[in-house]
Amino acid sequence: MHLASMPSQLEGAMDTLIRVFHHYSAKEGDKYKLNKGELKQLLTSELTDFLACQKDPQLVDKIMNDLDSNRDNEVDFNEFVVLVAALTVACNDFFEEQMKKRGE
Amino acid sequence: MHLASMPSQLEGAMDTLIRVFHHYSAKEGDKYKLNKGELKQLLTSELTDFLACQKDPQLVDKIMNDLDSNRDNEVDFNEFVVLVAALTVACNDFFEEQMKKRGE
Repeated sequence: MHLASMPSQLEGAMDTLIRVFHHYSAKEGDKYKLNKGELKQLLTSELTDFLACQKDPQLVDKIMNDLDSNRDNEVDFNEFVVLVAALTVACNDFFEEQMKKRGE
Repeated sequence: MHLASMPSQLEGAMDTLIRVFHHYSAKEGDKYKLNKGELKQLLTSELTDFLACQKDPQLVDKIMNDLDSNRDNEVDFNEFVVLVAALTVACNDFFEEQMKKRGE
């Protein structure tokens, strides 16, 4: 174990996911869950530009609705990661399509 | 759309996931998929220290075996994101446990 060594890019990205989630989840109520207000704040502050690469303008609403259907109206870290994964896959699809169009 | 504005931390992390995947997937064969060699290279180069926070030393082997069971022995971006999500959730569980122990 070399805990003092530099984290890789991927490790840094994973660490960022954890820190961003807790930055918003700690604001009020359960410190380890996002309530609706915290989730909305996170989405509008952290995902504005990235969502612009989505081709489906309803995608965020759909995801929000899915998350809303939870009994407690709260989003834990696991649910948050599923959301981020879905958005990243959508953006990667867009990216790969552009690459293929350019014949790369 | 403000494409010239600074990406948020979360957008940066999502962008990193996409770039890291393609850095390794483009090395040989299908440019959009990781073969076993590329995946192993990615895991050992990019996840060494972060995996140290796992309490289950067999976790990576288990995930590797799951991924190996794919018919084509290749990992596309969607499968890669599932892997990263699972590892991040495991690390977050560890982090939250530490926080709770300290009564935070």
